[in-house]
Amino acid sequence: MKQGKFIVLEGVEGAGKTSQCKRLAAALEAKGIDAVLTREPGGVPLAERLRALILDTEYTPDALTELYMYMAARREHLNKIILPALAAGKTVICDRFTYSTVAYQGYGRGVDIEFIRALNAETVKAAKVDIALFLDVPPAVGFARKGGADCGDRMESGGIAFFERIYDGFKAMCAAGELVAIDATVGEQAVAESILKAVEGVL
Amino acid sequence: MKQGKFIVLEGVEGAGKTSQCKRLAAALEAKGIDAVLTREPGGVPLAERLRALILDTEYTPDALTELYMYMAARREHLNKIILPALAAGKTVICDRFTYSTVAYQGYGRGVDIEFIRALNAETVKAAKVDIALFLDVPPAVGFARKGGADCGDRMESGGIAFFERIYDGFKAMCAAGELVAIDATVGEQAVAESILKAVEGVL
Repeated sequence: MKQGKFIVLEGVEGAGKTSQCKRLAAALEAKGIDAVLTREPGGVPLAERLRALILDTEYTPDALTELYMYMAARREHLNKIILPALAAGKTVICDRFTYSTVAYQGYGRGVDIEFIRALNAETVKAAKVDIALFLDVPPAVGFARKGGADCGDRMESGGIAFFERIYDGFKAMCAAGELVAIDATVGEQAVAESILKAVEGVL
Repeated sequence: MKQGKFIVLEGVEGAGKTSQCKRLAAALEAKGIDAVLTREPGGVPLAERLRALILDTEYTPDALTELYMYMAARREHLNKIILPALAAGKTVICDRFTYSTVAYQGYGRGVDIEFIRALNAETVKAAKVDIALFLDVPPAVGFARKGGADCGDRMESGGIAFFERIYDGFKAMCAAGELVAIDATVGEQAVAESILKAVEGVL
């Protein structure tokens, strides 16, 4: 069985990742490609339990505690969903992956970025990302799309400065060639076409 | 306020850690020392939630996923219980700490030991252990004390060979001077006296 392709979509809140992941899955299915759509953190029972703990505002983990919970959820999700799907020849579309941890816990919350990269490397060494796209929407635009900063969970309560740092982190990864930037400030259909074109390059 | 002392007790299942921690706390209190008795994984709500996930046999995390959950629980416990107690001048007695992770996830489950040590170092860099004792009871003796290998949780279902590797790991840390070995095959009162004598050296 030929190994499937592994596609990651990244972006700040309001970038439209979730709907673009769905559009991409549909577009691939229309081409006869068996696509699995999944997300981080979550996607599998233990990881969903961890996701619930991460987002529960009853707790106040520091950035490193949070990092470990994300890594645990990532590893479980990788082992139980991503690797089996790739091995079965399916194309995996993942909403967030290692890049989000560098951006959010590293650039956003100040955990040492080399430490995060070392954990990411150990955690996902069995998986090779074929293409990782950054849906480029500045945080102010993303916030406006989502109706302001009044979201309830911890990740979304850090304010605009926090998301500016995260955005800068994603842009740095684009500049380094780790992520492919897609202008996502334009209409949803146009964004979907840009994503599909980029993805076709690795299929 | 003078920083309190940080004492760790380690050992395989059936070594008598839990009761010796209690005896030590009582002995210190009798000397007028304010002692806080705590345990890993757990000791604080988020860490107890993580402990429950780790021990829940419904899930089958691999060794690295488990490692991250232990590290998250450790970090939270350190921030919320250990560091505040030490800063308040209290003596902390902790049932398991970083050494258990090296022994169980490293020697026991095969995660790269240097990787574990790097995570431990980053996680607990704000805390200095004053003395870490290994209650030395060979696994076969510990198992017999606990009534065999029929314990229900994941950690205790690995069989005797698993615990032999863990024991070897603890012994290696004793040989390296990281842990102080206490013969814990003798009577409970005699073990308590050996522990207190060792601890008095750092008070």
